[in-house]
Amino acid sequence: MLLKLLALCLFTFLIYVPIAEARIRHYKWEVKYEYKSPDCYKKLVITINGKSPGPTILAQEGDTVIVEVTNKLLLENLAIHWHGIRQIGTPWSDGTEGVTQCPVVPGDTFKYQFKVDRAGTYLYYAHYGMQRESGLYGSIRVSVRDNFTEPFAYDYDRSIILTDWYHNSTYEQATGLSSKPFVWVGEPQSLLIQGKGKFNCSSSSLTAGTCNTSNSECSPYAITVIPGKTYRLRVASLTALSALSFQIEGHNMTVVEADGHYVEPFVVKNLFIYSGETYSVLIKADQDPSRNYWMTTSVVSRNSTTPQGLAFLNYYPNHPRRSPPTVAPAGPIWNDRAPRLNQSQAIKAHHDFIVTPPTTSDRVIVFLNTQNEINGYRHWSVNNVSFTLPHTPYLIALKKKLHHVFSQTPPPEGYDSVNYDIYNVSKNPNATTSNAIYRLGFNTTVDIILQNANTMNVNDSETHPWHLHGHDFWVLGYGKGKFDMNKDPKNYNLVNPIMKNTVPLHPYGWTAIRFKADNPGAWLFHCHIEAHFYLGMGVVFEEGIDKVGELPSSIMGCGPARNPPVQSNLQPQTQSHMSLDATDKPSSIMGCGETKGFDKP
Amino acid sequence: MLLKLLALCLFTFLIYVPIAEARIRHYKWEVKYEYKSPDCYKKLVITINGKSPGPTILAQEGDTVIVEVTNKLLLENLAIHWHGIRQIGTPWSDGTEGVTQCPVVPGDTFKYQFKVDRAGTYLYYAHYGMQRESGLYGSIRVSVRDNFTEPFAYDYDRSIILTDWYHNSTYEQATGLSSKPFVWVGEPQSLLIQGKGKFNCSSSSLTAGTCNTSNSECSPYAITVIPGKTYRLRVASLTALSALSFQIEGHNMTVVEADGHYVEPFVVKNLFIYSGETYSVLIKADQDPSRNYWMTTSVVSRNSTTPQGLAFLNYYPNHPRRSPPTVAPAGPIWNDRAPRLNQSQAIKAHHDFIVTPPTTSDRVIVFLNTQNEINGYRHWSVNNVSFTLPHTPYLIALKKKLHHVFSQTPPPEGYDSVNYDIYNVSKNPNATTSNAIYRLGFNTTVDIILQNANTMNVNDSETHPWHLHGHDFWVLGYGKGKFDMNKDPKNYNLVNPIMKNTVPLHPYGWTAIRFKADNPGAWLFHCHIEAHFYLGMGVVFEEGIDKVGELPSSIMGCGPARNPPVQSNLQPQTQSHMSLDATDKPSSIMGCGETKGFDKP
Repeated sequence: MLLKLLALCLFTFLIYVPIAEARIRHYKWEVKYEYKSPDCYKKLVITINGKSPGPTILAQEGDTVIVEVTNKLLLENLAIHWHGIRQIGTPWSDGTEGVTQCPVVPGDTFKYQFKVDRAGTYLYYAHYGMQRESGLYGSIRVSVRDNFTEPFAYDYDRSIILTDWYHNSTYEQATGLSSKPFVWVGEPQSLLIQGKGKFNCSSSSLTAGTCNTSNSECSPYAITVIPGKTYRLRVASLTALSALSFQIEGHNMTVVEADGHYVEPFVVKNLFIYSGETYSVLIKADQDPSRNYWMTTSVVSRNSTTPQGLAFLNYYPNHPRRSPPTVAPAGPIWNDRAPRLNQSQAIKAHHDFIVTPPTTSDRVIVFLNTQNEINGYRHWSVNNVSFTLPHTPYLIALKKKLHHVFSQTPPPEGYDSVNYDIYNVSKNPNATTSNAIYRLGFNTTVDIILQNANTMNVNDSETHPWHLHGHDFWVLGYGKGKFDMNKDPKNYNLVNPIMKNTVPLHPYGWTAIRFKADNPGAWLFHCHIEAHFYLGMGVVFEEGIDKVGELPSSIMGCGPARNPPVQSNLQPQTQSHMSLDATDKPSSIMGCGETKGFDKP
Repeated sequence: MLLKLLALCLFTFLIYVPIAEARIRHYKWEVKYEYKSPDCYKKLVITINGKSPGPTILAQEGDTVIVEVTNKLLLENLAIHWHGIRQIGTPWSDGTEGVTQCPVVPGDTFKYQFKVDRAGTYLYYAHYGMQRESGLYGSIRVSVRDNFTEPFAYDYDRSIILTDWYHNSTYEQATGLSSKPFVWVGEPQSLLIQGKGKFNCSSSSLTAGTCNTSNSECSPYAITVIPGKTYRLRVASLTALSALSFQIEGHNMTVVEADGHYVEPFVVKNLFIYSGETYSVLIKADQDPSRNYWMTTSVVSRNSTTPQGLAFLNYYPNHPRRSPPTVAPAGPIWNDRAPRLNQSQAIKAHHDFIVTPPTTSDRVIVFLNTQNEINGYRHWSVNNVSFTLPHTPYLIALKKKLHHVFSQTPPPEGYDSVNYDIYNVSKNPNATTSNAIYRLGFNTTVDIILQNANTMNVNDSETHPWHLHGHDFWVLGYGKGKFDMNKDPKNYNLVNPIMKNTVPLHPYGWTAIRFKADNPGAWLFHCHIEAHFYLGMGVVFEEGIDKVGELPSSIMGCGPARNPPVQSNLQPQTQSHMSLDATDKPSSIMGCGETKGFDKP
């Protein structure tokens, strides 16, 4: 009888327990230029299926996401990165032009395919030159597995992305940055909340029709809330330049998630957020329901001319476009660093979700962050090496052993920390450019110490948000001034450090992180400020390249393997119907693989 | 003794007669965006080695030209066409994106290599979307073989290219053209003579620093002449839109060459020139040498707002920037068609250089030129078929027999000439888009009748300059109104027709040409107006594809062969380190050739 009952129980269990079956989330995107007015100023914007921000990818932990992207950008290529997705087993789907793939040319369709193996808040965006700034970005929201209970409760789930917005094109910006003398892109014209801002059209002399504040495309973004309910608001930043503070008038925010990891909850009035970071905050609609409230974002860490970005927290059933009766509250003082450092230090792993880091590391690399000049060109550098991308993506070069396509001289493990003055302008006369990479022992534990310093301007040190592809890392600590290798590691948080994929390096400070080099591939680690990475502020890590599976041919199609060297002994031919193709035959370089060759028929 | 003398003579002959040894002309070009102010308005310009127009290619008949082009255009691809060079034996070097090659991605170096087998005045420029408008263009000047005497005499040889110039980018223009509703790019802001113009900076509200009439980059172009000398002036047009008249104050011009062919000389005061055409004119510096003279160019055939372009004919030793004492003379009346048709009809082959055409043709194709609307989008069409480029270039598709990548339905050989009213707006409800091509019997003789018609505006018919790649054609005749297949061929000039590669189709008129399909390859024939070809005004001819040699791998790297079809039966995988590369393996489509696959290791 007992056995029978047990069998029945088991049977019931087998029937009723939902099976967590992973699904395929299949998207088809067409990417093109369209005229849009996100901040009332009309300019070319890169859209996905007609929208910027693009569609939100909704998936469940364990699902496979397939995105087929068709490039309709006229003359321009693209690549799309899936920020926070570790691409375990699919390093070729990381979408990092020059690192994991050649760019996708116009007319082509590229298929990204990867598993979203952990619930959380992630992002996608163009990762090709400074293309992200043109509007190709969006959210990835991965829900938890069935029957999994998150360590906090809420009624509804909402996402917003904060961005800054330039009126000139990425071509104009990039051309200025790589000019001699350097032409700085300047401060952004607007801050956008979920793709909407409001430029003061009367502030500059504009051609009629270019700027129109009554355009519905730039009506303020509104999140509608039902009084009494609790909202999970997923806030992400994808600014090109700006560090931000985000606040909701009259409402506290409880931080519960950071970069896909549960946070030991803490309450903020201002959420400081850096480009590449994502947070979930809980807000309760517990204020006077007869009105709407401001949601604002403003620039911190730079003395910016960019006005704050505005949106509405709309209490149902008020009209979502009804302006709050108050003046939008100002953000925090831009140059008050203490609360920003405090917030960084306040973020710990939730006590039920601690992933304990290894107590020691196998390798410690120190990255001095400097701005410098090399041959008259402005650069950003790491240990005075300004990073340049090779023409052949590292993943292909490494896997195919094309060692000639990038420098094999190992980049420096640190800098002259005894003598370097981080508080003053340094000439850094030994600064160079290089495309060399850091090769990490597979499954080793690596510590990175990010060390900030003065820029090329007196009394100036910037905030750099560093993003690591293919991994999460433990945030071991933050500090002021120069990192002390003897003293500071003793204060590392090895008990409940948060794991993240993006971390700020505060002005004149240091940030220490630790990660396991356990994901075969080639992975970028870089400052998430578009112009900074464009000017060389990044490095590439290789680990376990021999464990990477066969590369799909779709990622290939660029680099020197396509072009045999010119043969200097070429003789002119005199027949009128000469055939010159012999000189274009694959040379010895191409013997080890042609990125574009047809197989011989 | 006689024998000895003869031997000595022969020996002397062998020593002193220069041997016409073909040389290699090797160029290395770096193509990038730079800020330039060609008409005083600062904007991004595509430069070659820092210059726009780019360097002039100087070669001698029979030489081989090699141009290694490195793309530094940030996110943008490129392709360069060598206009007027027939690419005999090297159809893959024609530089026509979508027809003969995939575009060259940033970072890559592409090697163009071809023989310049006939002396004359030719051009090069970007042939990718509307990229030509961004400033990537220049001259090719091929001199005659040693000891060859041209049928006219001159002291000095000079080249200029006429262009029109927009202040917005090709991205902005193209996005407007392909929008619904259609947004017309409008008239160009300036006309440039050899890359220099003068925009009226005070005519619009511009940001400070954007427009500066005292910028030396926009000082008028000057050709310095020595009094009494005769100059060969090679005049070419590469306008995006405009038909032009060119004139030199107080100086007649004797037309002696057109598109690389000697012309029976005739004298003009206004040289009408259409985009893609080149002419050599002789001018004698026989006027009052104490002053300079205006060279001007102005728009004809459109009621354009674009002001005339100005340059100086500078009589040595006057200062080259000294403005002529006169008001720049106005050009001809824009809508007086008679002198334009007269000039077209006046151009005949020089009597010593007649290439007699075949007296009959094997095939006659009539091309009705119309503007129309398809699914709400504006197009230009040929026989109501608007041409679209496939993703796989035709040369690759044809040679590799990838017949699925473009339509195999033959495009129409003509139109309903009995019932079509060329003088009125037609709705053309049956207009379609297609990427089908015309396959020509190898070595057959083909006649093309270009037939003009009314546009979508009442009382409007435009001038279309049609350019044929890979061939010269005989110009058999021009006429007004509808071509009459029974009557008009009787008046063809089969005696001394000029050969050209670009020919105007005048408003409401027809133009008849004949060519031999004797050059194996895939060749574009299209209206040379950027926006018109962009909107579908072109066709492709294939001939002798089986005689084309092995294609260089460098032209490949785009198109559907790169992307296998999505497999609908894909199952999600549950291992955490899953490998998805199996789903990216070449599919059956790729079995016939992968544009980007590495050979299997």
